[in-house]
Amino acid sequence: MHKLLILSRNADEYLRLIRAADLPGLNITAISDAEEGPVLGTNCDIILGEPSFVSGVIPRIPGLRWVQSTWAGVEPLLDPSLRRDYVLTNARGVFGGLMSEYVFAYLLAHERRILHRHAAQAAGQWDKTPPGTLRGKKIGLMGVGSIGACLARTAKHFGMTVRGYTRASETCTEVDAYYHGEGLMTFASELDYLVSVLPNTDDTRRIVDAALLSALPPRAVFVNVGRGSAVDELALAEALRTGRIAGAVLDVFQEEPLPPEHILWRTPNVRITSHTAALSVPEDIVQIFLDNYRRLLQGKALRCQVDFERGY
Amino acid sequence: MHKLLILSRNADEYLRLIRAADLPGLNITAISDAEEGPVLGTNCDIILGEPSFVSGVIPRIPGLRWVQSTWAGVEPLLDPSLRRDYVLTNARGVFGGLMSEYVFAYLLAHERRILHRHAAQAAGQWDKTPPGTLRGKKIGLMGVGSIGACLARTAKHFGMTVRGYTRASETCTEVDAYYHGEGLMTFASELDYLVSVLPNTDDTRRIVDAALLSALPPRAVFVNVGRGSAVDELALAEALRTGRIAGAVLDVFQEEPLPPEHILWRTPNVRITSHTAALSVPEDIVQIFLDNYRRLLQGKALRCQVDFERGY
Repeated sequence: MHKLLILSRNADEYLRLIRAADLPGLNITAISDAEEGPVLGTNCDIILGEPSFVSGVIPRIPGLRWVQSTWAGVEPLLDPSLRRDYVLTNARGVFGGLMSEYVFAYLLAHERRILHRHAAQAAGQWDKTPPGTLRGKKIGLMGVGSIGACLARTAKHFGMTVRGYTRASETCTEVDAYYHGEGLMTFASELDYLVSVLPNTDDTRRIVDAALLSALPPRAVFVNVGRGSAVDELALAEALRTGRIAGAVLDVFQEEPLPPEHILWRTPNVRITSHTAALSVPEDIVQIFLDNYRRLLQGKALRCQVDFERGY
Repeated sequence: MHKLLILSRNADEYLRLIRAADLPGLNITAISDAEEGPVLGTNCDIILGEPSFVSGVIPRIPGLRWVQSTWAGVEPLLDPSLRRDYVLTNARGVFGGLMSEYVFAYLLAHERRILHRHAAQAAGQWDKTPPGTLRGKKIGLMGVGSIGACLARTAKHFGMTVRGYTRASETCTEVDAYYHGEGLMTFASELDYLVSVLPNTDDTRRIVDAALLSALPPRAVFVNVGRGSAVDELALAEALRTGRIAGAVLDVFQEEPLPPEHILWRTPNVRITSHTAALSVPEDIVQIFLDNYRRLLQGKALRCQVDFERGY
């Protein structure tokens, strides 16, 4: 008999969805929607939960075998002081659609001048300024995993040219040209939009720095839906302040919530959202959990395993 | 030898593009970027131009054989007092992409609360309100010609359910369910988004009235990228004022520019744009003209012919 602990702000919903699936050989021993986890009920071998909740609980669970993260990012569980003697799986392949809605909401809003039009309307102006179009524009994706592939598909739908910057992979056929390693500056040149979907790893830290921003054309807009650690935020603020690039759309930051005194709050042409580009939808996450649980029962390898060293 | 008159705000660009095509047997006799047209040079058999410019000129051109409109809507040429003894072709099949960008810019901005987020950012707030999503939402298209089909494709790309309301046609396979005639109220029920792409005809006049707006759920947003004549604007303002529907995005109006005293300027939850959803792009329009000119030389029927009685 397997014993499951659920640790999530949406614990009630996960409980309902997993109960509805009527999984064989599974006992749900406890659920908690608080960061500190439950007092009792830690006698379990499986945890489904948010990494920031799970990290505080795992030292107390000797029989732990598998953690299914409800998030894509698992940084709280990568701290070197924490145990790594269990299988960690994350949420993958479910955020692409929402990420695509977020990114293209802001790209289209930029081309269509939605905020300017709104201001014109408030002033009673019949604003005949022609809008821009995504058609024929160039988008550069830093990171082309399942989310990047979804962004590439939407970009092609709107008639854009798509560049991809990856470590080595060239699997997504909707990318028109791939760049790797030293090709970063060539990749950035001529882009209308630079979108980072990069995870937080040693290789990606501050990869978006003054040099990369300088390689972009002045019309370029930078979008970050990956991790804040990929960006040198002071260099970005300076590039925006001086008009070196045209704008930035930021959903992730080095520190979240973005501190009240942070310069990005006072930087022109930046749109700040609160790490809400692609929230985990329990219905989606549960599908990954159910599939992995059945694999566990069958002795198969679990899907979406995180490599603790690589960090994703 | 054919003789062409170009009447457009973009006359210079049309001249350049047509000269570059080096068409056999064609003389460009005059161009004008003013509404009243040229003083001389009206000895022509072909006009390429904006309907509002062309309508004032055609009484002076006895040898007129063919008018290629640079717009989709040709209302100025449908006035019963004007001659109809020539072939009128309009611009079709080139606006779908731009219309799709406009409509989905505003749909995504609505789901993603872009204006609310902007206000929160201005107030220094880290706004964790979850966004909505287009996935699983229902869109209803009034009119499923080439533009409607493009909107349907984009809607399916984002995982929406698509309903189509047409006179009779059911040609677009991306529409999940078709409605006609008396089925209008059933069509409207349960929609998240109602989008009118209807042309201005006797059948479409004020089809979006109090009854239709009442058939929509309160969460619904109405988008008009067709013609303002399709809407009872006072009924729409009332539906918005009372919260009967959630919002409206309007690019076209019964009178344009929208008069300063019009109630829609003071109506809540309405986004007003200035008939800029899909501006004619000369490169696109010229392709239609070139194709039709070659057909003329070969004695073939021209494409995109307008039926003067039907009005489109």
